[in-house]
Amino acid sequence: MSLERTQVINFNSGPCALPTSVLEEAAKGLLNYKGTGIGLAELSHRSGYFGQIVNDLAGLIRTQLEVPPTHEVLFTQGGATGQFSAVVLNLLARHRLLYPELSEEERVMDYVVTGNWSKKASEEAGRLGGGVVNVVTDARTVSEDHKSFASIPPHTSFQFSKKPAFVYYCENETIDGVQFSTDPASPAAFPWESIKEEDFVPVVGDYSSSFLSRPIPDLARHALIYAGAQKNLGPAGLTVLIVRKDCLVDTDAAAKLGAQPVPITMDWKVIHANNSLYNTPPMFSMYVSQLVLEHAQAQGGMPAIKLMNERKKDILYDVLDEGAAKGLFRLRVEKASRSWMNQTFHVLGAGKEELFLEQADKAGLKALAGHRQVGGVRVSLYNAISEEQTEVLVSFIREFIKENAA
Amino acid sequence: MSLERTQVINFNSGPCALPTSVLEEAAKGLLNYKGTGIGLAELSHRSGYFGQIVNDLAGLIRTQLEVPPTHEVLFTQGGATGQFSAVVLNLLARHRLLYPELSEEERVMDYVVTGNWSKKASEEAGRLGGGVVNVVTDARTVSEDHKSFASIPPHTSFQFSKKPAFVYYCENETIDGVQFSTDPASPAAFPWESIKEEDFVPVVGDYSSSFLSRPIPDLARHALIYAGAQKNLGPAGLTVLIVRKDCLVDTDAAAKLGAQPVPITMDWKVIHANNSLYNTPPMFSMYVSQLVLEHAQAQGGMPAIKLMNERKKDILYDVLDEGAAKGLFRLRVEKASRSWMNQTFHVLGAGKEELFLEQADKAGLKALAGHRQVGGVRVSLYNAISEEQTEVLVSFIREFIKENAA
Repeated sequence: MSLERTQVINFNSGPCALPTSVLEEAAKGLLNYKGTGIGLAELSHRSGYFGQIVNDLAGLIRTQLEVPPTHEVLFTQGGATGQFSAVVLNLLARHRLLYPELSEEERVMDYVVTGNWSKKASEEAGRLGGGVVNVVTDARTVSEDHKSFASIPPHTSFQFSKKPAFVYYCENETIDGVQFSTDPASPAAFPWESIKEEDFVPVVGDYSSSFLSRPIPDLARHALIYAGAQKNLGPAGLTVLIVRKDCLVDTDAAAKLGAQPVPITMDWKVIHANNSLYNTPPMFSMYVSQLVLEHAQAQGGMPAIKLMNERKKDILYDVLDEGAAKGLFRLRVEKASRSWMNQTFHVLGAGKEELFLEQADKAGLKALAGHRQVGGVRVSLYNAISEEQTEVLVSFIREFIKENAA
Repeated sequence: MSLERTQVINFNSGPCALPTSVLEEAAKGLLNYKGTGIGLAELSHRSGYFGQIVNDLAGLIRTQLEVPPTHEVLFTQGGATGQFSAVVLNLLARHRLLYPELSEEERVMDYVVTGNWSKKASEEAGRLGGGVVNVVTDARTVSEDHKSFASIPPHTSFQFSKKPAFVYYCENETIDGVQFSTDPASPAAFPWESIKEEDFVPVVGDYSSSFLSRPIPDLARHALIYAGAQKNLGPAGLTVLIVRKDCLVDTDAAAKLGAQPVPITMDWKVIHANNSLYNTPPMFSMYVSQLVLEHAQAQGGMPAIKLMNERKKDILYDVLDEGAAKGLFRLRVEKASRSWMNQTFHVLGAGKEELFLEQADKAGLKALAGHRQVGGVRVSLYNAISEEQTEVLVSFIREFIKENAA
């Protein structure tokens, strides 16, 4: 069966849906970029045309997220997983330059573990060594089964170190559907008050799956915000870094003091010194990302997108709660920690979950199966999913509840 | 002025021209992949559709280059520059596991420096440390000005170490237009006879700019062949590795013995264990690469492509030699070391080079300016440049000689 784009809604968790109008424009640029007779992927990355894309893309991110002048917007490859390593290498190098006298045991890396991705990041820090990992909190300890990630634990339980090399967290956990709250008064907000300002502790936020879905609270206080492109930005292969300037350090000098040398493509200072063009970048991903951000700006930018995403998740959680109240669904995540981007739930009753997924697929509602690690159903409401498309899903779910609730 | 693809010929050195029919197909797939109603960049990298692309792409490379079963075909990100570091980290880890008792001074990395890229690779090895760099040859010592790379030095001058951790060379140097000969009897061929078989020394070849332009001589004897995609394969952002299985080593075990830990995205064994899907890969680049290789296969595969590229470079070098004989051109590179992919030359006489580039541009012959480090003119005849397009350039040059030679 051959389907048109209009016949399906792609709820994939990432790579995920991109706006059709953007893809249509990109398809043209792939063959002929701005009337040059040459496609975008065939141009020199050192050409004026591409230099403009790099600058425009950085400028659009800067504008939409209100990035302060204290921070640089950089581009690299390797995904969030590449940054799991780069964060450790660059920030331990910084720590070495600032405090050369400390032993490895005194170079502590604080990880806030609230899901599978922050857990993986903390494991990579342990693998690389050069310092010790302190798990500030492990959200599994507060879950019902002590195995799953179902909430951001209460602030009061966070065990920050005294002077860590950095503090690391993942803002939205895609697999589990757990997200920090934007409301600083919420128990599920990032506990900035526990990190003393005078220490200038670098705070790192992995924003891969919530980047550009809403404004970033306290962006200016972060040392690094980073994100893989393949959710709200563009095709996989591009990673965006928003780095505080004092974290662009001379890693060669740090290596002379005993820090681990940093592979040149992972060295933030080198990336910055070369305007993100030290080597050939993922040009097509950057081009599509620029188009996506122009599209977002035309929609009203972050304030409008935030409101849209808020309405989308509200109507979806409403119908899921309705199903839960009727005993048909079980939502894993506590209300205060629910993700705006990824909604996870289980359909209860023998064969009901398979039926749900099968009927959804037939109705053109695609890619709703949960992550292989946790099962269940997962909806992803990234920016390219419209309110109308969300309503189609909500109607489908409402109908399913009517037919299947006891 | 708005140009059509048919009005220009793109001689860019990389990223470079891709076949129009491939880009047309990719533009469709970007919006709707195989009638799924979902574009290629929007599909899950864990979907059956994408798994098929990974397997097909590896299979096509395996077939076209006759990769033996001793070697794995893997995909990663970060470009050749990323592998400058990964080669050092993985192969020093291997060396550590085999010879844990050696000191760092005894872990020697042999670099054959024949151009800017092999020089950069050797510099990265020096930066990372963990062993010492031995420059087997520096081609600049045999050039006229002792500064430029103009030939592969004679075999007899190569100073290999006794038991290096690896030997590294770059098969084609894009900036300079210097390439190893495929004829083992040529003085510009890779001197395999100097590397004793019984030592099992890992030989690493950077094939970024000649990959898939002709068969790889002695592929089976290499520990690693690697290449960025953005020449004969596909859009930038993808790196291909062909690794001998015994070089996929447990870098964590090596780190316990004192080797440097390897960032997880650079660990070849991890990439292999996860079928190149440890994290989200550069999906669109891989998709286009698959289409390019299907196109290449339809053209007759490596044997046909080799013959085509041979004819292309022959007719071009013929006209360049003609211009040189008339005192209008100066070719930097010695005949035996001339690149098939990149032809570099200077136009002599006040203002003549500017005139050449200006007239070429007006005639739709694009991107012929030499690399910023060396100047002059550089033609690049990658696979997507047809014989007919090469003839158009040759006619233009012949006309230019007629009008401008004294």
